[in-house]
Amino acid sequence: MKDLDTNVLSVISPRPAESYKGNYGRVLTIGGNENFGGAIIMSTSAAVHAGAGLVTCATAPANLTALHSTVPEAMFVDYTDNEAVNNVLKSTTAIVLGPGLGTDETSKKIIANVFANVSEEQYLIIDGSAITLLAQEKDLQANLPQAHIIFTPHEMEWQRLSGIKIAQQTETANRVQQEKLGATVILKKHHTEIYAPNAETFRLPLGGPYMSTGGMGDTLTGIIAAFMGQFAKTNPQKALQAAVYTHSAIADQLSENAYVVLPTDIIGHLQKFMQEHSHENYRTKIGFN
Amino acid sequence: MKDLDTNVLSVISPRPAESYKGNYGRVLTIGGNENFGGAIIMSTSAAVHAGAGLVTCATAPANLTALHSTVPEAMFVDYTDNEAVNNVLKSTTAIVLGPGLGTDETSKKIIANVFANVSEEQYLIIDGSAITLLAQEKDLQANLPQAHIIFTPHEMEWQRLSGIKIAQQTETANRVQQEKLGATVILKKHHTEIYAPNAETFRLPLGGPYMSTGGMGDTLTGIIAAFMGQFAKTNPQKALQAAVYTHSAIADQLSENAYVVLPTDIIGHLQKFMQEHSHENYRTKIGFN
Amino acid sequence: MKDLDTNVLSVISPRPAESYKGNYGRVLTIGGNENFGGAIIMSTSAAVHAGAGLVTCATAPANLTALHSTVPEAMFVDYTDNEAVNNVLKSTTAIVLGPGLGTDETSKKIIANVFANVSEEQYLIIDGSAITLLAQEKDLQANLPQAHIIFTPHEMEWQRLSGIKIAQQTETANRVQQEKLGATVILKKHHTEIYAPNAETFRLPLGGPYMSTGGMGDTLTGIIAAFMGQFAKTNPQKALQAAVYTHSAIADQLSENAYVVLPTDIIGHLQKFMQEHSHENYRTKIGFN
Amino acid sequence: MKDLDTNVLSVISPRPAESYKGNYGRVLTIGGNENFGGAIIMSTSAAVHAGAGLVTCATAPANLTALHSTVPEAMFVDYTDNEAVNNVLKSTTAIVLGPGLGTDETSKKIIANVFANVSEEQYLIIDGSAITLLAQEKDLQANLPQAHIIFTPHEMEWQRLSGIKIAQQTETANRVQQEKLGATVILKKHHTEIYAPNAETFRLPLGGPYMSTGGMGDTLTGIIAAFMGQFAKTNPQKALQAAVYTHSAIADQLSENAYVVLPTDIIGHLQKFMQEHSHENYRTKIGFN
Repeated sequence: MKDLDTNVLSVISPRPAESYKGNYGRVLTIGGNENFGGAIIMSTSAAVHAGAGLVTCATAPANLTALHSTVPEAMFVDYTDNEAVNNVLKSTTAIVLGPGLGTDETSKKIIANVFANVSEEQYLIIDGSAITLLAQEKDLQANLPQAHIIFTPHEMEWQRLSGIKIAQQTETANRVQQEKLGATVILKKHHTEIYAPNAETFRLPLGGPYMSTGGMGDTLTGIIAAFMGQFAKTNPQKALQAAVYTHSAIADQLSENAYVVLPTDIIGHLQKFMQEHSHENYRTKIGFN
Repeated sequence: MKDLDTNVLSVISPRPAESYKGNYGRVLTIGGNENFGGAIIMSTSAAVHAGAGLVTCATAPANLTALHSTVPEAMFVDYTDNEAVNNVLKSTTAIVLGPGLGTDETSKKIIANVFANVSEEQYLIIDGSAITLLAQEKDLQANLPQAHIIFTPHEMEWQRLSGIKIAQQTETANRVQQEKLGATVILKKHHTEIYAPNAETFRLPLGGPYMSTGGMGDTLTGIIAAFMGQFAKTNPQKALQAAVYTHSAIADQLSENAYVVLPTDIIGHLQKFMQEHSHENYRTKIGFN
Repeated sequence: MKDLDTNVLSVISPRPAESYKGNYGRVLTIGGNENFGGAIIMSTSAAVHAGAGLVTCATAPANLTALHSTVPEAMFVDYTDNEAVNNVLKSTTAIVLGPGLGTDETSKKIIANVFANVSEEQYLIIDGSAITLLAQEKDLQANLPQAHIIFTPHEMEWQRLSGIKIAQQTETANRVQQEKLGATVILKKHHTEIYAPNAETFRLPLGGPYMSTGGMGDTLTGIIAAFMGQFAKTNPQKALQAAVYTHSAIADQLSENAYVVLPTDIIGHLQKFMQEHSHENYRTKIGFN
Repeated sequence: MKDLDTNVLSVISPRPAESYKGNYGRVLTIGGNENFGGAIIMSTSAAVHAGAGLVTCATAPANLTALHSTVPEAMFVDYTDNEAVNNVLKSTTAIVLGPGLGTDETSKKIIANVFANVSEEQYLIIDGSAITLLAQEKDLQANLPQAHIIFTPHEMEWQRLSGIKIAQQTETANRVQQEKLGATVILKKHHTEIYAPNAETFRLPLGGPYMSTGGMGDTLTGIIAAFMGQFAKTNPQKALQAAVYTHSAIADQLSENAYVVLPTDIIGHLQKFMQEHSHENYRTKIGFN
């Protein structure tokens, strides 16, 4: 297992002068039932602030107003309207599925529809309730689609999905299950681990207990989606690593002045962090240019 | 009666590196009818900013959107849905009952349900309308549950609950009634007093008239809940004292630049204050390390 | 006509240490139909930030969520529910009637109810649509209540109410009509004029064209209500003058960095301005203490 | 083709001391269906922050609360209520038509109503969905009204409207189609181009790829409307150029600390930028006064 270092941020490259929002990825976030709307709003807002070209949020109609009040840059679709969701889905680069989605019949239908319509070249980030549901529903498991799937479980969710008890979640054991899933697994814990297909295992040497608060993982999903939409063409592994790195590096910075770092605080610092650490700036700072 | 001093803040200890949100308490705030939604939103937001691991707000559906717009980190349940409330309640560390709850039949049923389902090891903070209702409803009084109950009345609410007229609210008189209740009483006034079972009476030498504005008490309840969720295991008395101390100490700081200090201003400074005054930082600053 | 000077701010006195929110006035703002909700939200938020002890907003239910999202410190009542409105009204110090109220039958009924229930010692600030309606409705005029009425018309509204064409609005002409109304008139214009019963006419030498934007007057009403609630006992004339002075003095300060000063910007600076200019601080600064 | 330079900002003149909000234009923004509410909210908020005297937003009722929560300075009308829309329309200086409007039958009826009621001296900014609909609907094209029409297409929308493929969008080709339309065309691209009737073509040498994010164009429409409302009387060409210049100049400034510049960030800096670059200040800074 290898530690991630600040070099992964080099994937945050300066944008070419001639470009338009279509070049920076279309993100679709799906989640937020009548109880957990905040989760999908944070995921969506993170995607917008992390530079995604266009972001649409598929959620319960009850969350429409809070979404627009928090992040007017994002668009809305009713997450139970399959036709509308699929219409957005087909032109999407990266999909977040799960924050605040819940685990009832509606949630299951929404996941099934995404699984049936996602395509091979798309990035599908599966989080929270969607992981729990997948772990318990055989018919969802049987229909896990061909796509670049990224699971973002915490240890208990990983136990549910992989069958490996938390105490037994060693690199070797995790690898076996990750390979069976044929997907990337971001195992969220004290030092988060990244298991990608055909790649070394990486460990995040950043982050701390000031991040132990509700919504932290939801926010990560939005950052991952935005980074895949912008940087995966260059190097998908590094894009993903940079997203995970960025999320905790910002938290570490903010923790100097905050006993607990809130997800919305991290969102508010994405634009500045990405600018400071973009490839060119970083090279300049360390004396390469 | 003894004055609280800054040492109570030592309970705000550095978080252990290996920990997750489950270690920092689950808070359930219950209140906010169709007229007083802001009260429970402030209580909820205070709990989130004071570091509670997970926060759910049980309120009227009319307040869902304002809740998510203000503090997307919090989750929602309909406060009239007993099953849903109890589902959250059973895994909760600290419950806030009362801010903006109102005093009608719905309010009464909500309180009765909490009283019937709270368990002995939980902290139950009873505030505002819930104190008023309890004072007037014999059947609620008869069913006051076994739990760590903390009442947060202002002087008029304490008069209603204890029967002691404001002018007669001496330490001795208050003690008698507090002991009958078998609960902790935080008597909010110019210099707030804390009456805990089997403990000295403490007096808060902080705070000022810039705090005399609507919502100030609601905000305190959220801070108390978050502190009990995080620090009660170490020392429940000190955790409670630190919450009361923190609330007024922030107000004192902000009053240098504000004629009136608003509850939302205090909420916005919780993270920084707690970081500055956490045990280790405090010791460093005064030269112990 | 005499120019107001900075001495009027001396009414913003330091609050006595032993006091509670009931000492700082209860404000009721009434307005905001389905089209103009922002107006009453700004008035309400201004009252909260200017230090009113407790603030309730009576508005259309459609505005409930935007109210709580913007200023959770305020409470809500449905403005068509006379019983609920009157319940709040009876314990209110200062009432704002009119911002965004509209001029239809509902508006008229709301005004009529307030006129029927306001009492002699209360301050009633009549603004915007309420002035227009009053100007055109004889039966409302006939029922203008006994109370400390403060009209806040701009020049066109004053023309409607007084019958004096804008070009003829001289001090003498305005005085005649103001005395007939038996009320205070704050004539909003380039240099706003204050006509109070049995008092000199005052002219505000502050303010500028950066204040020419929608919602500026709504915000003033909230500041007036809060100042009357806090400072009228000392000197009602000076309290009113200080409110008018504060509103424009803040705008003048902010205009150094803003081509147009928005109402919400002024609201955001009330707490700091009032602290800086409170009597004691002012005396210290000029070397009196 | 000539590059715009900072001199166009001289149209941002100091406001005359004696003036009122009616002097600074009434703006009506029309758009925002149930899915794209954020677009019209950003346009509206931009108009308010750029100094428009009075701003009304005609949108779907679903967007009412998010509108008031974001920008309480703006008023609301239901965009399907032709009578209410026309009531505001008739006293309006500049109309924004299109952001988030959608392309269904409702959208079409709304556009048709505006086309039938706009008058010759008004500025009509046609953006987004309204351009797409116009490009595909012959009966809308046939009824393009007499007014100062300003189209704000990006390259693909210009292709749809003009029939010129993106690769062939040369100055000469664009001119021919712009003249047929008898309108001003702001072609949004890497270096935006302005084609106004009987005027040189101007090119904006500002802006960058940090602006490639959803909502950027919506925000521009609001700035244009506010500038036409305030400065068109002096010099309509220069007013328009200054709006386009301001939008990108702010983005350029903010990009020093932001990898992506969000529309809401630009809105938040309008007041300061306009103040710093207003004619008098600019002249002072460069040593003319």
